Amino acid sequence: MDNLFYSTQIYDETIVLPQDEALHAIKVLRKKIGDNIKVVDGQGNLYHTTIDSEELKNCRLIIESVVKDYDKQNYFIHVAIAPTKSHDRVELFIEKAVEIGIQEISFILTDHSERDNIKLNRIYKRAISAMKQAFKAKLPQINDIVSIEEFVNSCNNSEKYIAHLNEGANTHLIHSAPQGTDYCILVGPEGDFSTTEIDNALEFEFTPVSLGDNRLRTETAAIVACHILNLVNEVSG
Amino acid sequence: MDNLFYSTQIYDETIVLPQDEALHAIKVLRKKIGDNIKVVDGQGNLYHTTIDSEELKNCRLIIESVVKDYDKQNYFIHVAIAPTKSHDRVELFIEKAVEIGIQEISFILTDHSERDNIKLNRIYKRAISAMKQAFKAKLPQINDIVSIEEFVNSCNNSEKYIAHLNEGANTHLIHSAPQGTDYCILVGPEGDFSTTEIDNALEFEFTPVSLGDNRLRTETAAIVACHILNLVNEVSG
Repeated sequence: MDNLFYSTQIYDETIVLPQDEALHAIKVLRKKIGDNIKVVDGQGNLYHTTIDSEELKNCRLIIESVVKDYDKQNYFIHVAIAPTKSHDRVELFIEKAVEIGIQEISFILTDHSERDNIKLNRIYKRAISAMKQAFKAKLPQINDIVSIEEFVNSCNNSEKYIAHLNEGANTHLIHSAPQGTDYCILVGPEGDFSTTEIDNALEFEFTPVSLGDNRLRTETAAIVACHILNLVNEVSG
Repeated sequence: MDNLFYSTQIYDETIVLPQDEALHAIKVLRKKIGDNIKVVDGQGNLYHTTIDSEELKNCRLIIESVVKDYDKQNYFIHVAIAPTKSHDRVELFIEKAVEIGIQEISFILTDHSERDNIKLNRIYKRAISAMKQAFKAKLPQINDIVSIEEFVNSCNNSEKYIAHLNEGANTHLIHSAPQGTDYCILVGPEGDFSTTEIDNALEFEFTPVSLGDNRLRTETAAIVACHILNLVNEVSG
């Protein structure tokens, strides 16, 4: 299957591959001058290129054509998650959400949070790797951690949801979400959101929703929420 | 939130906890004689018990009451997956599938498989841990790896699906699956099923289905398939 490469050094007629991507292309996949490879810029553009130099430190590609807005779609999914104690589980959520499809990721500090920081470098690396693997051209916007108060106060997505555990009476997300708009969903820590946090979110017009009757880990709930919003939009009828 | 313990040493009026579970109860959670704890047997039964001995090697519990068929539901999900090169990703699928809800897991050897064996001990351990975490009482049945030919030949679930990548024209699983029955879905390796394998599955009345337009890793496809079959049954209308 096609490999996808990533670069942010995009010029008018050429692209320069970062050294690790060049190493993969030239040394691992044994690509040569004149070979065609595809490059994405994380901004939604897919470039068809020809290798013009095999130098690892200056691996130049000639742009043959470009597909702009390769991933374009008419909906936008934003998940705001309280990061898990294990950073691996945060990264796991990133990988699966990028594969399934996500446009923005935020991290929130909550009363019951088990972690108050995230490693943005590792998260970006995992997101880039998942983007290439899933053959997508656009990286989600990834925001550093803020308090949940600050987040709900400033969130301006059209459809806003909070998935919390006292959810017996809540409508399932799949029935709450209309098609073709921009969504934000809050996913809490293992100990759930506090009552104050829930009340505050409701004041800012977040709708409480259920993700089903299962007791899911935080990262699983976030993956499942992302999958449901994709299903709502990808599957007609 | 409640902790759940696991034991298979269930007698008429007592339960003996395995040593690692006893260690967790007595040393980590500092439970004492007379304290109540809940135990599951992986067969669907949930026991309310009282600690009768704090000995780690013979931690005895008195059964106070039992909820039989705690997880009982009117559908049955069986996923057969070609194990990924990384065993961690196999275990990740196990964990997430158990959280979301799965009743049987099989492993299949295919033409493009990157791994021809699985570590059943590690898989059981991960499944037990996920079952307790998700507050379920029943472990999925887990079957050792067999060839895909043997598998499709002997699979006797009512609704049989094969998710493969030439799926443009295939109906989405969410529209293919009726409610309240038993399903089996085949999920292939990174290189997809071979044409021969697909043709053979079709002969044995597996229906080709799509899991959406995204290019998903094997373990992600399996998680997503499991989630869709759960949604079909858990969300009415």
